[in-house]
Amino acid sequence: MNVDEVYKSLLVPNNSKLALVVLDGLGDIATESTGFRTPLEAARTPNLDALAKRSTLGRMIPVAPGITPGSGPGHLGLFGYDPLEFEVGRGVIEALGLGIDLKQGDVAARANFCSLDAKGIVTDRRAGRIDTRICEAQCVLLAGKIKKIGDIEVIIKAGKGHRFVVVFRGKGLEGPLNDSDPHREGLPIAVVKPQNKSAKAAKMAKVIAAFYKQALPLLKNCKPANGFLLRGIAHQPKIPLFEDRYGLKAAAIAIYPMYKGLAQLVGMKKVEGVSTVQQEFDAAVDALKAYDFVFVHVKGTDMYGEDGNFDAKVKAIEEADAALSVLLPEVDVLAITGDHSTPVPVKGHSWHPQPVMICGEIAGWDGQDRFTERTANAGSLGVFPAKYLIRYLQANARRLDKFGA
Amino acid sequence: MNVDEVYKSLLVPNNSKLALVVLDGLGDIATESTGFRTPLEAARTPNLDALAKRSTLGRMIPVAPGITPGSGPGHLGLFGYDPLEFEVGRGVIEALGLGIDLKQGDVAARANFCSLDAKGIVTDRRAGRIDTRICEAQCVLLAGKIKKIGDIEVIIKAGKGHRFVVVFRGKGLEGPLNDSDPHREGLPIAVVKPQNKSAKAAKMAKVIAAFYKQALPLLKNCKPANGFLLRGIAHQPKIPLFEDRYGLKAAAIAIYPMYKGLAQLVGMKKVEGVSTVQQEFDAAVDALKAYDFVFVHVKGTDMYGEDGNFDAKVKAIEEADAALSVLLPEVDVLAITGDHSTPVPVKGHSWHPQPVMICGEIAGWDGQDRFTERTANAGSLGVFPAKYLIRYLQANARRLDKFGA
Repeated sequence: MNVDEVYKSLLVPNNSKLALVVLDGLGDIATESTGFRTPLEAARTPNLDALAKRSTLGRMIPVAPGITPGSGPGHLGLFGYDPLEFEVGRGVIEALGLGIDLKQGDVAARANFCSLDAKGIVTDRRAGRIDTRICEAQCVLLAGKIKKIGDIEVIIKAGKGHRFVVVFRGKGLEGPLNDSDPHREGLPIAVVKPQNKSAKAAKMAKVIAAFYKQALPLLKNCKPANGFLLRGIAHQPKIPLFEDRYGLKAAAIAIYPMYKGLAQLVGMKKVEGVSTVQQEFDAAVDALKAYDFVFVHVKGTDMYGEDGNFDAKVKAIEEADAALSVLLPEVDVLAITGDHSTPVPVKGHSWHPQPVMICGEIAGWDGQDRFTERTANAGSLGVFPAKYLIRYLQANARRLDKFGA
Repeated sequence: MNVDEVYKSLLVPNNSKLALVVLDGLGDIATESTGFRTPLEAARTPNLDALAKRSTLGRMIPVAPGITPGSGPGHLGLFGYDPLEFEVGRGVIEALGLGIDLKQGDVAARANFCSLDAKGIVTDRRAGRIDTRICEAQCVLLAGKIKKIGDIEVIIKAGKGHRFVVVFRGKGLEGPLNDSDPHREGLPIAVVKPQNKSAKAAKMAKVIAAFYKQALPLLKNCKPANGFLLRGIAHQPKIPLFEDRYGLKAAAIAIYPMYKGLAQLVGMKKVEGVSTVQQEFDAAVDALKAYDFVFVHVKGTDMYGEDGNFDAKVKAIEEADAALSVLLPEVDVLAITGDHSTPVPVKGHSWHPQPVMICGEIAGWDGQDRFTERTANAGSLGVFPAKYLIRYLQANARRLDKFGA
């Protein structure tokens, strides 16, 4: 029997309230450059410390040993979907990041403005890294002139610098398709070809060819950004809904669009209108009145990890520690973790298993008085794949029945 | 998507230097008989202790929980090949152990001299455990008279006691085949039959029948070793090359032929001419000038574990600790581990997960000041399958790109 079917057969409804608090990129490493401490170790975290007494600890592998995840695979894993099984295309991630409300069947592409010579050869794949304002103006130009290709709606939205996103919406479309980006200068824009033989992908390729035919003439006088390249052309993957899978009505709270979008991909309801960490936790308290489960995403820890800013990462942890206190009386089972590590010495995402703490009435105390990477090493959860985290939350909420007699 | 394909798609080349130091059978257990210490705990290891400060620790399962590996599966696992997927026949292992330079397509058999009565019945499967010198003389006799069977070259090489190896080399051969060993006395030599219906295996069976027809008359007067039995008849398996799989040009340094042979199976270049542990590490330094990755195999720890000699195993660890210091300045990422445990109280290989330490700039300190079985228990790597070790080394060397956006 498939283990997901087993889990599903064991679902027991009750009124418990669950929360998953993701401090993005939380995990870190202790090296000589950090005084052999991690930000979690250096931070003053009275709330996390108090929680440790009714918590089980461990560390999680986001995708597979040694694999550093992007935000997409990182969050899919946390939500309990194996990132190797459920892949989210680059175009979809970018569209979510720009706050585009993707619908089932949409195909999204990441786009770069580029420079073309008179013969149509790509001379600069990033159009001299044009300013965001130029990108925005050109996107307005394109969006104003091209609203539809046949029966397919076209949505164009500017990102940062030379980057934008194109979403194709309508019936009978499918990805993935090869990039029109030739991936090096000196070549013409590549013809976009489907990666499989489906009629839907063939239709998508035709629509993209027609889109190019209309769009390139509009950019003729827009040097240096007189062309564009598409990458990661993919549809929003079909993912089993969170509520069906876990029996949990879920709300998502995040400040950045990408994380709201990723939660929405699995069917969580996104909460709008929050812009500080404290507002996020206040909104979580509110959401739990109507939902069983709330996902709260805190961005600062990742951002300062990427900057290599130890002290700022410490402050981001302390801010979250203070802000989450309002949530504690409202929740029966709480997990605190990251979607991956973003260690200060690495200045980027990494594969280092992120620490996780599950708090609840029957979690059990692992004998640790703090929540850090190294107390987590001694936890009773061990090192385990992130995709099992929600299962542990269900179990702690007594929402999984006994298996077998 | 298959995880190996994912790893391959993430390969990033750089100039980092990696080393895998295998202290064979390193892992041990603390029991009353050992004063509740392990050899690693009892040894003075100033170099390993210093490395611990920039190391992540864990323990590895060589094959599967509770499975005690031989040297073949133990090393295949370390090299990142699932030993349950890639099986190396006993004949191949024995041939490698005798230093035979196996080529793709060779079929190798482990052979025992045995005693036959007048009717051809096996009366002693080990020919009274004849002396190695008799075995060598009889192998010279056979090898002198039988150089080819049809178009197939026959290579015969004596081992210890009654043991020898026969390798069949030529076109269109394949294993595995059933043993000619009846596995108990009182039966005749079994006819060798292919284990599948391939034409190549059928040809191999015919060649072996012809080999017996020529060889047995030559041994007629060689009592008590007037017959021989073949076991583990198999070809060298097709294994994806280490360099293709990991993007690492690899050299192998070992004193014993079997370990050089196992490394060669996956395409590592073997370094010849070393005969002491210090020479091995000196050779490793030298190899890293031309190679990205070096595998160093130290035998003593296993040998003394098998002998049940605690003090000698401690000394072997101390010798390796001193010898490896020359390697440290030359290497960016270093793993130190065993291919399995050979605990002194067990006097043999065992399934106990072996300790592993990965040292590097971004490995992170697990807060342990020594490298032992019990400090490894508190490491951030947890207990994991040995086949992932090289993935962690790649990641620590920043040779794996981010997965997904």
